Amino acid sequence: MYISKLVGERTKTSPADAVIKSHALMIRAGYMKLVSNGIWSLAMPAQRISQKIENIIREEMNAIEGQECLFPVVMPRELWDESGRYSSIGDEMVRFKDRKGGDFVLGMTHEEAAVQFARDAVNSYNQLPFMIYQIQTKFRDEGRARGGLIRVREFKMKDAYSFHIDQQDLEKYYYRAYAAYERIFKRIGMKNFIAVTSDSGMMGGKISHEFMLLTDVGEDTLVLCPKCGYKSNMEVANSVVENYADEVELPMEEVYTADAKEIAEVTKYLGDIPAYKTAKAVCYNIKGDSKTTVVCFVRGDLEVNEAKLKKVLRKEVVPAGLEGSALVAGNIGCLGLDKLKDVVVVYDNSLKGANNMVIGANKEEYHIKNFSFNRDIQIKEFHDIAKVVDGARCVHCGAPLTLQNGIEIGNIFQLGTKYTEAMGMTVLNKDGKATTPIMGCYGIGVGRAIASIAEESADEKGLNWPMAIAPWHVYLCALRPDDPVVREKADKLYQDLQSAGIEVLYDDRNVSPGFKFNDCDLMGIPVRVVISPRSIQNGIVEVQLRDGTLKENLNLDDCVGGLKKIIEDRI
Amino acid sequence: MYISKLVGERTKTSPADAVIKSHALMIRAGYMKLVSNGIWSLAMPAQRISQKIENIIREEMNAIEGQECLFPVVMPRELWDESGRYSSIGDEMVRFKDRKGGDFVLGMTHEEAAVQFARDAVNSYNQLPFMIYQIQTKFRDEGRARGGLIRVREFKMKDAYSFHIDQQDLEKYYYRAYAAYERIFKRIGMKNFIAVTSDSGMMGGKISHEFMLLTDVGEDTLVLCPKCGYKSNMEVANSVVENYADEVELPMEEVYTADAKEIAEVTKYLGDIPAYKTAKAVCYNIKGDSKTTVVCFVRGDLEVNEAKLKKVLRKEVVPAGLEGSALVAGNIGCLGLDKLKDVVVVYDNSLKGANNMVIGANKEEYHIKNFSFNRDIQIKEFHDIAKVVDGARCVHCGAPLTLQNGIEIGNIFQLGTKYTEAMGMTVLNKDGKATTPIMGCYGIGVGRAIASIAEESADEKGLNWPMAIAPWHVYLCALRPDDPVVREKADKLYQDLQSAGIEVLYDDRNVSPGFKFNDCDLMGIPVRVVISPRSIQNGIVEVQLRDGTLKENLNLDDCVGGLKKIIEDRI
Repeated sequence: MYISKLVGERTKTSPADAVIKSHALMIRAGYMKLVSNGIWSLAMPAQRISQKIENIIREEMNAIEGQECLFPVVMPRELWDESGRYSSIGDEMVRFKDRKGGDFVLGMTHEEAAVQFARDAVNSYNQLPFMIYQIQTKFRDEGRARGGLIRVREFKMKDAYSFHIDQQDLEKYYYRAYAAYERIFKRIGMKNFIAVTSDSGMMGGKISHEFMLLTDVGEDTLVLCPKCGYKSNMEVANSVVENYADEVELPMEEVYTADAKEIAEVTKYLGDIPAYKTAKAVCYNIKGDSKTTVVCFVRGDLEVNEAKLKKVLRKEVVPAGLEGSALVAGNIGCLGLDKLKDVVVVYDNSLKGANNMVIGANKEEYHIKNFSFNRDIQIKEFHDIAKVVDGARCVHCGAPLTLQNGIEIGNIFQLGTKYTEAMGMTVLNKDGKATTPIMGCYGIGVGRAIASIAEESADEKGLNWPMAIAPWHVYLCALRPDDPVVREKADKLYQDLQSAGIEVLYDDRNVSPGFKFNDCDLMGIPVRVVISPRSIQNGIVEVQLRDGTLKENLNLDDCVGGLKKIIEDRI
Repeated sequence: MYISKLVGERTKTSPADAVIKSHALMIRAGYMKLVSNGIWSLAMPAQRISQKIENIIREEMNAIEGQECLFPVVMPRELWDESGRYSSIGDEMVRFKDRKGGDFVLGMTHEEAAVQFARDAVNSYNQLPFMIYQIQTKFRDEGRARGGLIRVREFKMKDAYSFHIDQQDLEKYYYRAYAAYERIFKRIGMKNFIAVTSDSGMMGGKISHEFMLLTDVGEDTLVLCPKCGYKSNMEVANSVVENYADEVELPMEEVYTADAKEIAEVTKYLGDIPAYKTAKAVCYNIKGDSKTTVVCFVRGDLEVNEAKLKKVLRKEVVPAGLEGSALVAGNIGCLGLDKLKDVVVVYDNSLKGANNMVIGANKEEYHIKNFSFNRDIQIKEFHDIAKVVDGARCVHCGAPLTLQNGIEIGNIFQLGTKYTEAMGMTVLNKDGKATTPIMGCYGIGVGRAIASIAEESADEKGLNWPMAIAPWHVYLCALRPDDPVVREKADKLYQDLQSAGIEVLYDDRNVSPGFKFNDCDLMGIPVRVVISPRSIQNGIVEVQLRDGTLKENLNLDDCVGGLKKIIEDRI
């Protein structure tokens, strides 16, 4: 490919809204163009990277007996009614009517399509297990698209669905898929990634893992135990809960706290008492039901983990508006809440047995001191609804946990029978009895993988693609291409490299060396090959790797083999 | 691949709505599954065919310097407002609102996206020409989806867009694309295809060609001249117009015709006069304007060509409802129509100079005889709005034309500046002046190509894929796989063939030979290899081609090379 003909301009200025480097650099290097919020067009180099990643994914999915299929982007409502997700999924699913008034959705995942596809075709246990997958465009009407290809609305995804006769068989396959994922991320050149246990969310099912690229710009928080290897998404992470109780329980009393409402204000007002001697109230509404208020109490030094709360309630929650309710924002306490209508109270484990605590007095300007969760209230049940904090002790080994940010680059779920049961898929088992197959599902977003690798590998000069997915292997710089000798030698080299199966981006533009080198660095092509009047005089080409690990001269007439080896050693 | 694990059952019964064989066979052979009207899931073998076709298309597009990109499925209204097509395209374009209330469409073609992508990145004539293309899912809310993958709503398409500094350069490239299309269709194994000149329809632009598979089940009618090679879609075809006039013009008179309304009825009532001595009125409404009636007059032996009529009117038309209008259905004639409000009259060239004609009298039960288009009416303009009939004379060489049916398998358009102008794309020309690039566009539907090849190659036993796109090259039948010797030899052969790069569908099921052979024939795998206790005894495998061109035995221990040659010779 001639860079002079490549559509996609390289620029010096970053887009104003680009806060992470992969986003800024992929635009600056001409890899993609915004069409609408969270919707992109990919230029040739990005599309080449995408295809290389897709092919690696495909090889690894085929290696675990995956059958590549293609399910539709547009699906009828009826299919999603069968699983119940037409109504349970919110605004993030696009719904529209066709010309005849039928209801349709844009696929954001394809469990329904996979079951519909398989349920008539598969009738017997001896057709199990099988895995079907596709690499297809999806649309999720993401409320906060950001970060270039990191969080988008339209995306290409590999989604796989496996079907099993029993849980044991699912688990066996699940860990084969897990291993395939590790191979995929390694092969596409990702370095610092881990798998963590995760929340299955709207997918249903129990056991699931997310593959995470560790990076400060990640939006997910991960809880890691450096000692025993425990790794979890914050959403489902837990730690040892330390319950503090003073030996002497003091008498409860109401205290004036003026306009102190936040925990930090209250503890300060009361003479810098520690936050863990307070109980914090955090309020939510059940989604779609603004009447009911959920009041969560956690120890003052902790935060509510909404994902855990959802599991306790088995309902989605949104931050509450307290206007019109009987609750006094900033002064909410445990006493008397049971008398209020439309209030649900959830207590965190951290409050179990705590005494001499400060809680709200349920009236303006007052709190209660020396409240005892043993003495002063009857609580039926405590739950785990708090976020793990940095340094909390691991439940498995007791070592201090650490928190890290990550980007989710893939996920695997043990779905169970949620979809097969709802959609009436059965097979005959060995005894001729109808049995509901158990499913697993396995996703990787291709665009996010591109952005994640860009994020991990880029430096101040630009992108820096791993060889296995680079859009081209070689950036061939002809310096002084107006010199007929340079032109001839460079043209020949361009042909020879391509004949040898090496992918070349050829810069034959009549611009300065610095200009070319900058474009090469910005675009992140792994091997830079320079041919110039001087190099020709010396009978060499200058070879330099983008990642700085190699800089050498090769014989001009004899460099193809050497370059091929450099490339193959790094794929 | 083991056929026992392949998801997609093979059945004996055709679906009730399958009227063409490719549709019936692809379902019977387990290649695809209906999800909703015009929306399909593709099983593994269909997806493999699709990928092989895509790769051939990709190679040929890259060979004419195409840059593969990826444009989005979902696009914002604003983009389609720029070209004016948000309002000009009807129900076939899906429109929906996103969660924030913005208007979006599903892409059915991507001229707008291509121009939006290129217009900022390309500034100078020396970046031209270039061609960008994608292979991407599209959705067109087709009113009459039918024929399996022939006419669908969701489809994968290769769409390419070229940009040029002037018409001359576009034409040069256009014919390179034309040649690439011929290579593509040949390489994917299509035999009986031709290119015809066509109507550009909603695409705009003037010169365009459709590539057509000639087949009786095609919905398009093609007009072909066997002598000079003139080839045209009926929509834009023309022929020599024969104008008949009698030497003696008789006096006009009103005649009673009772309830005779159709031309056949009227000619019969009047004593079997020839249909060409009548003028037929055909009525339309302008689309979206039910008030205006367009009355077309063509000679009684001809039909109105709606595509030509649309061009004359520069508007879409729909069949008229005459209720409430002053027109007398079945008795409409030319006289007095100019006095009616909301009536537009269009005369076909075939009526020029005609005399002694029968026309409607514009009242129930009466027609007019001996009407003369020279003597009895003043007509400003005649137009070409009639369909060419079989045997009409070619305008180029005078030979009789023939009609044939075809399926459109690809199209190429010279778009001109319709999109670049509307969307404000300019480049600086050699003189530094802003110039609007001229575009070409080039489409191939992948799914329709699959169905067309299926239609062309299938026989009474089933599908019959050309080697280049077959889902697997070899169908390996192990007869008596419960025999450990057969099992061992067959397993080894399966491995050896795959190691040699031969794609194998392995039938190791414990079923009868006939059952296996039927599945092999139905699925249309090109090479059948049979290994059995007898063949092992004889030290051979039995090789037979699905298309009947070869049947031979190869040495069991030494057949891989021979099979490889059989396959390679046919790709």
